[in-house]
Amino acid sequence: MSTFGTIFKVTTYGESHCKSVGCIVDGVPPNMSLTEADIQPQLTRRRPGQSKLTTPRNEKDRVEIQSGTEFGKTLGTPIGMIVKNEDHRPKDYTEMDVYPRPSHADYTYLAKYGTKASSGGGRASARETIGRVAAGAIAEKFLSQVNNVEIVAFVSGVGKCELNRSCENPEFVELLSTITKEQVDEAEPIRCPVLSKAEEMTKIVEAHKAANDSIGGVVTCVIRNSPVGLGEPAFDKLEALLAHAMLSIPATKGFEIGSGFEGTKIPGSKHNDAFIQKGDRLGTVTNRSGGIQGGISNGENIYFSVAFKPPATISQEQHTASYDGEDGTLKSRGRHDPNVVPRAIPIVEAMAALVLADAYLIQKSRESTFGVIH
Amino acid sequence: MSTFGTIFKVTTYGESHCKSVGCIVDGVPPNMSLTEADIQPQLTRRRPGQSKLTTPRNEKDRVEIQSGTEFGKTLGTPIGMIVKNEDHRPKDYTEMDVYPRPSHADYTYLAKYGTKASSGGGRASARETIGRVAAGAIAEKFLSQVNNVEIVAFVSGVGKCELNRSCENPEFVELLSTITKEQVDEAEPIRCPVLSKAEEMTKIVEAHKAANDSIGGVVTCVIRNSPVGLGEPAFDKLEALLAHAMLSIPATKGFEIGSGFEGTKIPGSKHNDAFIQKGDRLGTVTNRSGGIQGGISNGENIYFSVAFKPPATISQEQHTASYDGEDGTLKSRGRHDPNVVPRAIPIVEAMAALVLADAYLIQKSRESTFGVIH
Amino acid sequence: MSTFGTIFKVTTYGESHCKSVGCIVDGVPPNMSLTEADIQPQLTRRRPGQSKLTTPRNEKDRVEIQSGTEFGKTLGTPIGMIVKNEDHRPKDYTEMDVYPRPSHADYTYLAKYGTKASSGGGRASARETIGRVAAGAIAEKFLSQVNNVEIVAFVSGVGKCELNRSCENPEFVELLSTITKEQVDEAEPIRCPVLSKAEEMTKIVEAHKAANDSIGGVVTCVIRNSPVGLGEPAFDKLEALLAHAMLSIPATKGFEIGSGFEGTKIPGSKHNDAFIQKGDRLGTVTNRSGGIQGGISNGENIYFSVAFKPPATISQEQHTASYDGEDGTLKSRGRHDPNVVPRAIPIVEAMAALVLADAYLIQKSRESTFGVIH
Amino acid sequence: MSTFGTIFKVTTYGESHCKSVGCIVDGVPPNMSLTEADIQPQLTRRRPGQSKLTTPRNEKDRVEIQSGTEFGKTLGTPIGMIVKNEDHRPKDYTEMDVYPRPSHADYTYLAKYGTKASSGGGRASARETIGRVAAGAIAEKFLSQVNNVEIVAFVSGVGKCELNRSCENPEFVELLSTITKEQVDEAEPIRCPVLSKAEEMTKIVEAHKAANDSIGGVVTCVIRNSPVGLGEPAFDKLEALLAHAMLSIPATKGFEIGSGFEGTKIPGSKHNDAFIQKGDRLGTVTNRSGGIQGGISNGENIYFSVAFKPPATISQEQHTASYDGEDGTLKSRGRHDPNVVPRAIPIVEAMAALVLADAYLIQKSRESTFGVIH
Repeated sequence: MSTFGTIFKVTTYGESHCKSVGCIVDGVPPNMSLTEADIQPQLTRRRPGQSKLTTPRNEKDRVEIQSGTEFGKTLGTPIGMIVKNEDHRPKDYTEMDVYPRPSHADYTYLAKYGTKASSGGGRASARETIGRVAAGAIAEKFLSQVNNVEIVAFVSGVGKCELNRSCENPEFVELLSTITKEQVDEAEPIRCPVLSKAEEMTKIVEAHKAANDSIGGVVTCVIRNSPVGLGEPAFDKLEALLAHAMLSIPATKGFEIGSGFEGTKIPGSKHNDAFIQKGDRLGTVTNRSGGIQGGISNGENIYFSVAFKPPATISQEQHTASYDGEDGTLKSRGRHDPNVVPRAIPIVEAMAALVLADAYLIQKSRESTFGVIH
Repeated sequence: MSTFGTIFKVTTYGESHCKSVGCIVDGVPPNMSLTEADIQPQLTRRRPGQSKLTTPRNEKDRVEIQSGTEFGKTLGTPIGMIVKNEDHRPKDYTEMDVYPRPSHADYTYLAKYGTKASSGGGRASARETIGRVAAGAIAEKFLSQVNNVEIVAFVSGVGKCELNRSCENPEFVELLSTITKEQVDEAEPIRCPVLSKAEEMTKIVEAHKAANDSIGGVVTCVIRNSPVGLGEPAFDKLEALLAHAMLSIPATKGFEIGSGFEGTKIPGSKHNDAFIQKGDRLGTVTNRSGGIQGGISNGENIYFSVAFKPPATISQEQHTASYDGEDGTLKSRGRHDPNVVPRAIPIVEAMAALVLADAYLIQKSRESTFGVIH
Repeated sequence: MSTFGTIFKVTTYGESHCKSVGCIVDGVPPNMSLTEADIQPQLTRRRPGQSKLTTPRNEKDRVEIQSGTEFGKTLGTPIGMIVKNEDHRPKDYTEMDVYPRPSHADYTYLAKYGTKASSGGGRASARETIGRVAAGAIAEKFLSQVNNVEIVAFVSGVGKCELNRSCENPEFVELLSTITKEQVDEAEPIRCPVLSKAEEMTKIVEAHKAANDSIGGVVTCVIRNSPVGLGEPAFDKLEALLAHAMLSIPATKGFEIGSGFEGTKIPGSKHNDAFIQKGDRLGTVTNRSGGIQGGISNGENIYFSVAFKPPATISQEQHTASYDGEDGTLKSRGRHDPNVVPRAIPIVEAMAALVLADAYLIQKSRESTFGVIH
Repeated sequence: MSTFGTIFKVTTYGESHCKSVGCIVDGVPPNMSLTEADIQPQLTRRRPGQSKLTTPRNEKDRVEIQSGTEFGKTLGTPIGMIVKNEDHRPKDYTEMDVYPRPSHADYTYLAKYGTKASSGGGRASARETIGRVAAGAIAEKFLSQVNNVEIVAFVSGVGKCELNRSCENPEFVELLSTITKEQVDEAEPIRCPVLSKAEEMTKIVEAHKAANDSIGGVVTCVIRNSPVGLGEPAFDKLEALLAHAMLSIPATKGFEIGSGFEGTKIPGSKHNDAFIQKGDRLGTVTNRSGGIQGGISNGENIYFSVAFKPPATISQEQHTASYDGEDGTLKSRGRHDPNVVPRAIPIVEAMAALVLADAYLIQKSRESTFGVIH
């Protein structure tokens, strides 16, 4: 439903055509400095209208903390946050009254709820992710303070232009170890930090935009400095929680961690990550596991990739059926992203941070008993 | 943790070296005929020792229902089930006292729990999945009765030998529409129903076994006759729950639904599934969405693939570090699967069924109000 | 934490000294007519400043629906609601910087969170209940539509002046069957519908107010027309959920359902409620069970009482210790209710409605399978 | 449903007429010594057949740990436990085929599940509590190790014979501070440690037994050495969780904590617990709050009382209606407790321990961040 997490827990509300969107973040530990200035940057990063590659909608997306902080510090009580919907223009979508948009959520929302919101897809709207990003920014700050955790996502594929994401590619492995949010944003608007590829990707997006079409892409995310021991077997293995989190983002179709689908083709003798002493813990020489073994973080970089399909709403005509089952042609008006992956960056980071913060607190409750019980 | 689901809910217990493994299935609706005979077949399908391709461990894995049924009918109360561990042979693993197995859960379990179970990886054991399969068999029977739902998984890749899983491949799409569990099992022991590929896969597994090595693979699963409207946005989109479920299975590294990663490369104009009237509902001409739009099932086939890495435990020597950080060489003894994907078939089906049964009941609670409230 | 319920689910935020308080109500079925006008009356009923018996704080407590409705109908998506905090006057509480108020939450909040909110007791504030009341009003409307459920709470005790709440008292039993919210409010400000007692209670409150003191009371609540079959054994028996809900209201110290503590003194032969045919179901001749048997509603009136202690904040001097452990004298300034039970009426109703709406939806999911599975 | 808790979590299964009853306890921290010998004593204490006051059923109720421990230590993985049902004699209840037992769960179970278990009340059976007691024994050992927590319940009322449970009664307050499980059991079979009262209570039970009747009672429970800071506002206040836990025990009708219903009659000036320095923390001079303020434990004794109604199944004839609505007379055969409160002692202790262990671990996760974030 609309709540995610066990101890560090976010509940979101809102769709595109209502007064505001927002969330309640419960379980944020007390005494952490927190103001809107900690949250706004990630919201701004997901904002449309930043560049010609994305939709001209021009919300301000200013977050307002409602509760849970005083004098710039968290109280430990739930943090309510709202972002007003300033520019919803419901009129644009009138043709949707006749045709459900192919591969959009119009039809399934109607089937599920027995009612048609003026936005068609209801909570499938990208605006639903604002609450996640706001909550994730808090989680990210928390993780940064407790273990210097760094979470960076970047675009690793647009259409057929992809980075070589192989765990066997030393350049990619190196990129995972060094990439920063700043470097990603230097590659605006496409947010692929390999600049030669970024240029190609930008052209692909522009070509699809010009053709009133859309195209998908891949986002890769790395979590550095994760504490060892996070993830709750059996059902809440860390990769399971990450997969859940990522596939809950609109337009996602796939998830792979560490060696991913490629790993199915590598013999165990080569795929296994041998151990080696690293400081005060065991580390691994390679990292095909993607920082998680047996569902539990091992201290190496956690990295995973998420597939985003091409946006369903396109401006060209589509032959399809109306709600009544009549054949016809839909031509969508309104604002459409030709490609969502650059804007998905802060959303992926947010969901990763929410998973990790929750797993961290659960593991800390266990560790509090080490050496105490016997 | 060890509980999965909201209304139809399974909790499992057990690892390889304890008295029994099992589960409690809560929320099973009353008055459904159910005996061990409904559950045992799936347990037998996941049993090791069925063929030369899998481990020679020879458990009987007989399930015993403890509660929740009378005279062969469910009562609506929790169904306790146990399967005895008959053959655990804890002695085989003594070298693990010195070396954590690379890419296994030995090290992370120690780090997380501060203790070393004699099985090393604790709940990362494949025996943990017995409870899931038992619970899933109940869910599958339930779904079959309420909507004639059919869930069939099969091996679609072993090492570099793969079916063409493209949503653009008409043979694959056709296979998804027709494949049955019986056909999958005819392809024993490899469970790839495309027999030319099955032969090649079998050879790959045998070659790795001969080399004291292991190899991964891909399992594809299709759910037919899913009711429309399942899945709870925003966080519990149906694909998010499926991804969570699949990545909670040991040794999984990836998940894709519908067009998956390939879908990122297809323009929206081609990727979109146009609507068409099908009986009393709208259907889609193509199905790149994989039966889910906006996180909600649309009535088309739900299909997804899961990547399984090569098993970490191999019989050849591995250069690695001991728990103490000393370099050395580990040679594992004991029983090892060179490849797990054939045995994973009923596990994937079970987890899919658990997700769907739970989503079904939640949606039914909503639908109960249609036409009642106003 | 701050979320309550499984399917029909509320999450609240806010304390007294922040921008707003509010909630997100998830799982509200779609297509129910709903505007602020359905919610405001209950908020107004809990508002302070209605009469001389309650605190002079003068908030307007206007609820604003943020999301989840369109054109006055629910969408099935989460309903965000906010109520601004207009009058928080944080200055009044400065002496709290030295002394934790006896029997208030100042000390325990500090101990739990390691930080001192300017409101002292943080979420122990009565303003936290606004989100509950707003959510409960939605639940109440829903229940009214699906089964004509009626929920009415009233004051049944203030100090030593009590109604005879015995299940053996025919007048009380009759009152439970007939009492309406309107009758309760006619007895403003004390909300005890037995007018002779109401007068006495009012005098008790006034006397305590005059003495800069406070006094507790009892609220009784009846739920009529509950569907049969609600409540989820074993842990979520309907009375257990109600007890949880009621004891989560600030200042509560006790809960009894049906015959309650008195029932412990009645022999089984007399206490048992004999069955009798009532329309198309079995009913009971008496109702010492309070409408619940084995944790499941039986269709009779559900009634229970909740004990509220005297408010901890009083204007007279109290000898106590400072945060530093120094003996001293605290004289609280600020606004204090001498008695909270009249204002607790809509809160008790709200929590009862939330419990019942959730239990209803869960049972409906089960009932959807009756006659379908076999 | 059948799962209780968030981090320290029990799921139970089983009713009276099935193979076994049991539970899975998830989230038990690793490395605590634990064998059946830690659990059996509490199970034996709840066993029927200990004395002439209770039912002659003669189960052995031997618990068998299935998983989650090795070499007498917990692994941190779920602990499965089973207790066989040896003596179920389903034949005794045949008259139930015609008449639902008044005030028992026969009718509501039928209404809820649409099916009639041979035990009539399904999970309303007292045997359902075995899993709770087994789980609670683990929680109790855990709490004892982490903070020397002591949990002792005792009978404080049978019929009209009651201890003076007033928070104003110094003898009762003293009893709460000193009572031990051993003292309670010295007062076998009635388990009221005030011996003069115990004698009277025993006579009351015997008289009701002789009259083929039954009688209720009250159990009081004290938790000593609770850590400060437990309980999660707003909805999971510690008293709310305790109330939930207690009202989920079969046959309970009421709960009060601290001053309880009596506290509603005491002015705030007298009811408030003044603070005083106690060692390294603030304590309170009196303890009308019952060890909890604002939903959070304050370090004082937590004490509460639970009302148990008279058992519904009695051997004398009862005029009632059949399932078909026909008037008639039911005479129950079989084994009946004339009074359940002595056997309820370990159940109350178990549920209290489960609540506290879970609250403890959640608070520890928060405390892990104190001094770390800023």
